[in-house]
Amino acid sequence: MAEEKKFVEQVTSMQTDFAQWYTDVVKKADLCDYTSVKGCMVIKPAGYAIWENIQKELDARFKKAGVQNVYLPMFIPESLLQKEKDHVEGFAPEVAWVTHGGLEPLQERMCVRPTSETLFCDFYKNEIQSYRDLPKVYNQWCSVVRWEKTTRPFLRSREFLWQEGHTAHATFEEAEERTLQMLDIYATFCEEVLAIPVIRGRKTDKEKFAGAEATYTIEAMMHDGKALQSGTSHNFGDGFAKAFGIQYADKDNQLKYVYQTSWGMTTRLIGAIIMVHGDDRGLVLPPRISPVQVMVVPIQQRKEGVLENARALKDALEAAGLRAAIDETDKSPGWKFSEQEMRGIPIRIEMGPRDIAAGTAVMVRRDTGEKIQVSAEGLPERAAALLDQIQQEMFERAKAHRDAHVYDAVTPEEFARLADEKPGFIRAMWCGSQECEDSLKENCGVTSRCMPFEQEKISDTCICCGKPAEKLVYWGKAY
Amino acid sequence: MAEEKKFVEQVTSMQTDFAQWYTDVVKKADLCDYTSVKGCMVIKPAGYAIWENIQKELDARFKKAGVQNVYLPMFIPESLLQKEKDHVEGFAPEVAWVTHGGLEPLQERMCVRPTSETLFCDFYKNEIQSYRDLPKVYNQWCSVVRWEKTTRPFLRSREFLWQEGHTAHATFEEAEERTLQMLDIYATFCEEVLAIPVIRGRKTDKEKFAGAEATYTIEAMMHDGKALQSGTSHNFGDGFAKAFGIQYADKDNQLKYVYQTSWGMTTRLIGAIIMVHGDDRGLVLPPRISPVQVMVVPIQQRKEGVLENARALKDALEAAGLRAAIDETDKSPGWKFSEQEMRGIPIRIEMGPRDIAAGTAVMVRRDTGEKIQVSAEGLPERAAALLDQIQQEMFERAKAHRDAHVYDAVTPEEFARLADEKPGFIRAMWCGSQECEDSLKENCGVTSRCMPFEQEKISDTCICCGKPAEKLVYWGKAY
Repeated sequence: MAEEKKFVEQVTSMQTDFAQWYTDVVKKADLCDYTSVKGCMVIKPAGYAIWENIQKELDARFKKAGVQNVYLPMFIPESLLQKEKDHVEGFAPEVAWVTHGGLEPLQERMCVRPTSETLFCDFYKNEIQSYRDLPKVYNQWCSVVRWEKTTRPFLRSREFLWQEGHTAHATFEEAEERTLQMLDIYATFCEEVLAIPVIRGRKTDKEKFAGAEATYTIEAMMHDGKALQSGTSHNFGDGFAKAFGIQYADKDNQLKYVYQTSWGMTTRLIGAIIMVHGDDRGLVLPPRISPVQVMVVPIQQRKEGVLENARALKDALEAAGLRAAIDETDKSPGWKFSEQEMRGIPIRIEMGPRDIAAGTAVMVRRDTGEKIQVSAEGLPERAAALLDQIQQEMFERAKAHRDAHVYDAVTPEEFARLADEKPGFIRAMWCGSQECEDSLKENCGVTSRCMPFEQEKISDTCICCGKPAEKLVYWGKAY
Repeated sequence: MAEEKKFVEQVTSMQTDFAQWYTDVVKKADLCDYTSVKGCMVIKPAGYAIWENIQKELDARFKKAGVQNVYLPMFIPESLLQKEKDHVEGFAPEVAWVTHGGLEPLQERMCVRPTSETLFCDFYKNEIQSYRDLPKVYNQWCSVVRWEKTTRPFLRSREFLWQEGHTAHATFEEAEERTLQMLDIYATFCEEVLAIPVIRGRKTDKEKFAGAEATYTIEAMMHDGKALQSGTSHNFGDGFAKAFGIQYADKDNQLKYVYQTSWGMTTRLIGAIIMVHGDDRGLVLPPRISPVQVMVVPIQQRKEGVLENARALKDALEAAGLRAAIDETDKSPGWKFSEQEMRGIPIRIEMGPRDIAAGTAVMVRRDTGEKIQVSAEGLPERAAALLDQIQQEMFERAKAHRDAHVYDAVTPEEFARLADEKPGFIRAMWCGSQECEDSLKENCGVTSRCMPFEQEKISDTCICCGKPAEKLVYWGKAY
């Protein structure tokens, strides 16, 4: 049967070909698919349910931090995009242009938003008159378009889903505080919910966002040692405000420019979950983000009482607040097991006639494969506790893996050897010049990931030019 | 002060100019605003929070009905749009065309989705092979673009937010059942949550969706007697399946075409809420959809104990599961009252030093203006009960208003006079010919809203041509 075949074929081993493994998992865990629209993807129910959980968790954290949601148009007139010089230079080469509406050519062409700083500025210009109108702390959930040449599911596609927060403040300090507050929300979200440890830091000028004064980032390490920039938060100072003329009358009746920030997280987080936690049997989802947390698999389900007991268990799990499901299809148990494993569901509970007679069940952890014989009594509480434990241990394993792949380099030779031989991050001092960044990229294939907030001085000189260096930088290959 | 001015200016009276009243409310209740992007709007926090509640309520009802969410690309290659003849004729004149990606012209231009039937068909063609793959019951929440010439906030804009469900089934009967099931979800949602009574029925062929075999609709009456089509559900039969070649192998191993449906609701529902419930003091929100249900307004808030008591009350309201807020700004109470009224918050609770001393408070209903002196004890339960009562009475008032503006016509003269003099719906028999529909539109300015499910025979002949008639039709002017 065509359907059987889909699962019997295993995914490519991570060791053999990480990129192929990733594509296989995306496809076989039914997360997304290619389409007739080049470079764009369909996010399928199993993938979209993960995104819905990401949205729900992040949005609740945003709202606690005083963020209000809005929706702005998806189009940006060309003249608006061009108002901030660095910004247009950064984005114009990769936008999609709308030139006709219906049968008529447009008087001015518009791009589909690649990001919405210019639209928010245009909006804030009218909304903000007085210090009483500040701060504005707005966010939108939407899709954006960037005309990428090469694309990969979730990691880089021409259209992707994200949230973009855009704020306006009376002072630089307040804007800086908001920038860091949102980065902190991103970092704790990744660590607490996605079980992905991140390094918090600041981007170098070369790597910062087009138009930003400072870009802060959280960087995660994938299983293959490569970095994935997982969320960024930008402080624009008053650069956009000056370009767009966004002024407010302060208490002293002076007209002043506002200070702005923006910050975003995208569907590439789904790629991060796959590449941090997945294994050769497929996806492994952290319990807090998993659309289904416990899958009940009845064994010999045609025998009397089996389905009834399994359904009662599923109901009891749901009553205890867990996201549970039951696989009642006529597939074989082994088949159901491998499906559940491919889809990364954290816990499977097997329950057959003998278990029912003995008042027991078998819980199987997706992350470790461990089988635990348990009493049927108190099972929902047992499962809830196990989910917490899995969440915690997945984070610790990811952190141990990450920490084991961070290396310090104090000589150029060491740096070159590490970049060549050791997948992971390299910590090394840097003088601050873009020439050195360019040279390390050209010669060693790495980019600066960030200047971590937790600075240390591991040597006195720049790893590249040997001049005095003040900044510790994480370097690595990146998605 | 500029800020004071915004609220002291009242909205235009409904009686004087309904259209201007609508625009004033939209603007002064801070729901949305125009932008530099012609024909597109910004949905502001107060408006977007209503949409979030609509999404939450509808999505929960969808999920109970087995709907799964997905996300498909926003672009449709021209060749894909053209595959179904009626569909392309209906939509091609009003789409936005993307012709360039980055600096390069595209090989094939693409439109921004006006609706996604063609994309879902292209997707289903690959996803569906066997009867085991059916049914597919997918939905997406997204924005769509239709290049309208004249636009009005929420009611008609070039870009709007909506959900679009797209399903595929093994049989026509199952597709028809799903079409009607979703229409029923729309109708009960409108009635139970938005307190808007609707007429359920079928569209005439002239008014049906481009490419559909049958379109079902729910029609609501606005305060000015005009109709607003509030949700539609389409049965496509196997027309799209044949155009796109979507076939499955049935149990008997025969290749068969699937049967499809689609259904959608949009941000125009916010326009419906405004125009059904609003009054000359602004917006009136049904409690179940209102982002804030109870606003606590402390009186003489600088006096000892007032703010503490008001905050404790707000916390108690939230603990009882109500969405509560407190207005602690330094505006005057009268000012706060008119703000709360403009924004349509269902209940205001006023609490000053004398109330606190007496152990009482004053609850004020937004919908009727009624003031109720209540004991502070058990106030959250009292407020919860009052919210239920308001919800119920708002529905009943809207229904009474609607029913009072539905007229039967059995002669052409009656019909013409009603269309001319009586804002509202006219019920009249129709022979089924498009000529008669066209003639009634041209001569009386009304369109067929629907053939209601609850049919009656109020006369034997068509209101227009006098030939034998079988169908009762609701006619009206529409947004």
